[in-house]
Amino acid sequence: MPTRRSFVRIACVLFTFTLGLTGAASAADDSREAPDPLPSWNDTPARSAILEFVRVSTTEGSPGFIPPEERIAVFDNDGTLWAEHPMYFQLAFAIDRVKALAPARPDWQDKEPFKSILAGDLKTALADGERAVVEIIMATHAGMTTDEFALAVSDWAASARHPRFDQPYTACVYQPMLELLACLRAGGFKTYIVSGGGVEFMRPWASRVYGIPPEQIIGSSGKTQFELRGGSPVLVKLPQIEFIDDKEGKPAAINNRIGRRPAAAFGNSDGDLAMLQWTAAGDPAHPGRARLAMIIRHTDAQREWAYDRESPIGRLDKALDEATSRGFIVVDMKADWKKVFAFEK
Amino acid sequence: MPTRRSFVRIACVLFTFTLGLTGAASAADDSREAPDPLPSWNDTPARSAILEFVRVSTTEGSPGFIPPEERIAVFDNDGTLWAEHPMYFQLAFAIDRVKALAPARPDWQDKEPFKSILAGDLKTALADGERAVVEIIMATHAGMTTDEFALAVSDWAASARHPRFDQPYTACVYQPMLELLACLRAGGFKTYIVSGGGVEFMRPWASRVYGIPPEQIIGSSGKTQFELRGGSPVLVKLPQIEFIDDKEGKPAAINNRIGRRPAAAFGNSDGDLAMLQWTAAGDPAHPGRARLAMIIRHTDAQREWAYDRESPIGRLDKALDEATSRGFIVVDMKADWKKVFAFEK
Repeated sequence: MPTRRSFVRIACVLFTFTLGLTGAASAADDSREAPDPLPSWNDTPARSAILEFVRVSTTEGSPGFIPPEERIAVFDNDGTLWAEHPMYFQLAFAIDRVKALAPARPDWQDKEPFKSILAGDLKTALADGERAVVEIIMATHAGMTTDEFALAVSDWAASARHPRFDQPYTACVYQPMLELLACLRAGGFKTYIVSGGGVEFMRPWASRVYGIPPEQIIGSSGKTQFELRGGSPVLVKLPQIEFIDDKEGKPAAINNRIGRRPAAAFGNSDGDLAMLQWTAAGDPAHPGRARLAMIIRHTDAQREWAYDRESPIGRLDKALDEATSRGFIVVDMKADWKKVFAFEK
Repeated sequence: MPTRRSFVRIACVLFTFTLGLTGAASAADDSREAPDPLPSWNDTPARSAILEFVRVSTTEGSPGFIPPEERIAVFDNDGTLWAEHPMYFQLAFAIDRVKALAPARPDWQDKEPFKSILAGDLKTALADGERAVVEIIMATHAGMTTDEFALAVSDWAASARHPRFDQPYTACVYQPMLELLACLRAGGFKTYIVSGGGVEFMRPWASRVYGIPPEQIIGSSGKTQFELRGGSPVLVKLPQIEFIDDKEGKPAAINNRIGRRPAAAFGNSDGDLAMLQWTAAGDPAHPGRARLAMIIRHTDAQREWAYDRESPIGRLDKALDEATSRGFIVVDMKADWKKVFAFEK
């Protein structure tokens, strides 16, 4: 007779086969131990919490059971699904775009922050803080059609490499989180990204990398303008912010776009706190349903980075203080993850 | 050997059975004619265009074939899926809310447009046009939590009745469009609402009435504010417009929320023109894929209403002028629909 854990394992694996998400092995065989759905997770309480959540939420008759259509899981991206150091990858993209666009923009040679970027002096370029970042993002994300922008992102994702790991940025995704995404989908969960990053920056590669389709990616956005060019409609990206999908904006966006309270939420910083609170509180109409709110804590300077309360990128302070009282599960990257990146030896 | 049409019929019906969308009959039987997927449509070119579109887009190897994940169909709501006369149903809801909320708002007794609404004089109440409408909407849609608002909409949908038909408003949906929704879903299309109406006004009843889940409903929205009340998170509706999902806003919202170009779009007014243009132009990366852009023209004063170029509600003018050159299919309600509403005798 299977134990509870092996039941969840079998369920995850069978679903995974059914959905065709893996072709690594032949059909499951009842007589042998089912493959581990979370092989990159150590056998710690964090891993148990995930497997228990999947078991309870998908077992009909269990008090925590969640009807399939209500199985919504939301993931922050930067620092939760992929790395965010030494700078947000979208900023790395924008800086690479400044260099690529410079020949057509002679005015940038004498204008900050572009001048310093082109001189290779990032420290000076970004000395102005958020204002400089917004200026770089606007200058490199606007003034073209949405189709042109998607192409620029795809080209960058295929060619740019992370400075520390010498890997494509899209390879700097956390292997344990890919397994978690697959395990939740195997349990019938619809997985969403709810990120402060730009929605149009994520879509060109996120489907391939995370298995999350474009319509399940929510992010910050700039305004677009519909135009007929020679009779053909295009959407032109304007240098104006439409929505910042961060902090209190995250539950607001979830409500506006999904229209359901998530059953599971995953984040890594105070920017995710409101989303974690919103999820952990549960749906007042169905208080008994299982829910899972999880914080990925960066504790591994050797394999990744170690940062939390004092970090300018991915600051994790208030959310950590509230973890115990609100029932957030804190994942300690160093202790809980057997492997961080797939490319690790 | 089945004809092309009966092939499409069989495909629609088989899909419908598979997806469990109907339990009205027992398993399909190859030896008898498959049930008509569009029984409320007359046998006219509009109906043929729909069936041909479904056949071509879902037949592997056909030049118009659309991969399943790209099968996106977007529907306007007011005047396309349900009626919009004598006033937008959301305005009828708001007016009913003014009456329901009046006991707690003694100040409304002397303040327009509320005073006239409470006196039963809608003409005076709405004399100020759009400004009055916005004021009524804001006063009745804001200042409560999203959960409270959803409850108010559900209560109204269950009790309010359309003045002409003496039916619940949610029964004043077009039977031919319900069949079209089911037929497209049977062909693997993901059906979305993209409406100028409020997203939170549509969600409480649209899943039940149209079979469209909350995350596939896009609409106009007000801002919300995340708050902790006694430690519990709520979203409070603010009296501020966040987004108007109309005209050029429709393709912008489709791009922002869905991130794919729709293969099919259905509208009834100039407010849908940009969405129809965007869809009819097709995806530049896949110009051969089938697409369908359709206008529902209100031509039946007896069973519904007859209005187009001069109507203040659902004005259809420019979109009609462009129909031929852009390949929009125009549905003539009177000629093309055997039945308008399910409640018709």
